[in-house]
Amino acid sequence: MISSAELAKRTNVNPAQLRKDLSYFGRFGVRGVGYDVAGLASRVSAILGLERDWRLVLVGIGPIGKALVRYPQFSQQGYNFVAAIDIDGKHIGEEIDPGIGIWPFDRLMQIVKENRVDLAVIAVTPDKAQEVADVLVSSGIKGILNFSSSRLVVPSGVNVQYVDFTVLLDSLTYNISRNTFRAEERWASVTEHPDKWTNEHSWPIIQSNHRAQPVETL
Amino acid sequence: MISSAELAKRTNVNPAQLRKDLSYFGRFGVRGVGYDVAGLASRVSAILGLERDWRLVLVGIGPIGKALVRYPQFSQQGYNFVAAIDIDGKHIGEEIDPGIGIWPFDRLMQIVKENRVDLAVIAVTPDKAQEVADVLVSSGIKGILNFSSSRLVVPSGVNVQYVDFTVLLDSLTYNISRNTFRAEERWASVTEHPDKWTNEHSWPIIQSNHRAQPVETL
Repeated sequence: MISSAELAKRTNVNPAQLRKDLSYFGRFGVRGVGYDVAGLASRVSAILGLERDWRLVLVGIGPIGKALVRYPQFSQQGYNFVAAIDIDGKHIGEEIDPGIGIWPFDRLMQIVKENRVDLAVIAVTPDKAQEVADVLVSSGIKGILNFSSSRLVVPSGVNVQYVDFTVLLDSLTYNISRNTFRAEERWASVTEHPDKWTNEHSWPIIQSNHRAQPVETL
Repeated sequence: MISSAELAKRTNVNPAQLRKDLSYFGRFGVRGVGYDVAGLASRVSAILGLERDWRLVLVGIGPIGKALVRYPQFSQQGYNFVAAIDIDGKHIGEEIDPGIGIWPFDRLMQIVKENRVDLAVIAVTPDKAQEVADVLVSSGIKGILNFSSSRLVVPSGVNVQYVDFTVLLDSLTYNISRNTFRAEERWASVTEHPDKWTNEHSWPIIQSNHRAQPVETL
């Protein structure tokens, strides 16, 4: 058994938030006693879809893409790359070191279908990301981890997670700059709405897919 | 001049959200006319702290860390690595290819202070991340991009952005699994609260630092 206080301490999260988050998925734990560790782990795994393995394809074999294929935590958690696509066609037939073959872009759909690939990592330049996403969607991919700085237009039912390292640094520098901001009248609204930018969870635990909205004119 | 509709289209975001986000920082644009492009770019740069260069140190020289040092968008946007720390001490004196020297961990504080380093990237294993963060905080670092899967305990005023690739894949598989979920009574609350997990912005644009909260007992 483990208490929510101990669980929160070990994971550096707020215990009240931990209990609240779990409560969205039903009843967990017993007041005054805590959680059954094995039961909790099993239910959380089921909720997250971690009771099975997932097959991934990498599109874009730059340094970030290669680092992800070699990321040890992925295979430990059941995320297995089955192929890599070289969008520039310069390394076709080579392998990324754990034996992941590098294929041309025009084989992407076939690879996804024949290997029943579940998820794709896009690590190409922003100008090519949408074209890659379109092929992935046509191939039946339902989840994309997108490292390009392009926002992708995908149908409802296809999930996209964005990782933009520059945006992450920008938010650090925004916070640092704001702390040293000299109040000027034209920026007055920054300090009037500080709470708008606070968020108990700084991890993007669960996020929905972005969908285009009806366009209005300024 | 550019309209919010056109700006939203080019960036694949919702135009209403775009206008709302900008409005937190004061008045932007003229109704029925749009935004002055140069003026808007300059004000957004100022808000994000991008009108100056920022100096970074990398701690942890695995594949992810090296890929970040070589990430071309960083230097284009004024983010410049000045040094890398090899926590295992195996590559001291070598360089990561654009001429970034590799130093031992016990030189970290001196490097930060002498080079007036602003930001740090932590790309070490989870067990070492807090020790690294403690030295960074003691050195005066105010912004940390943390690739380890450890949550960090840092004082108020130090900003941390978390990037956990496994968590990002977990949220994709959660969304995919949820879409194919067979309703079972014990999971009924999942479908009762679908809106809890939706979020117009799937990019973690601005996030606050996590702070430990008072502990309550379950």
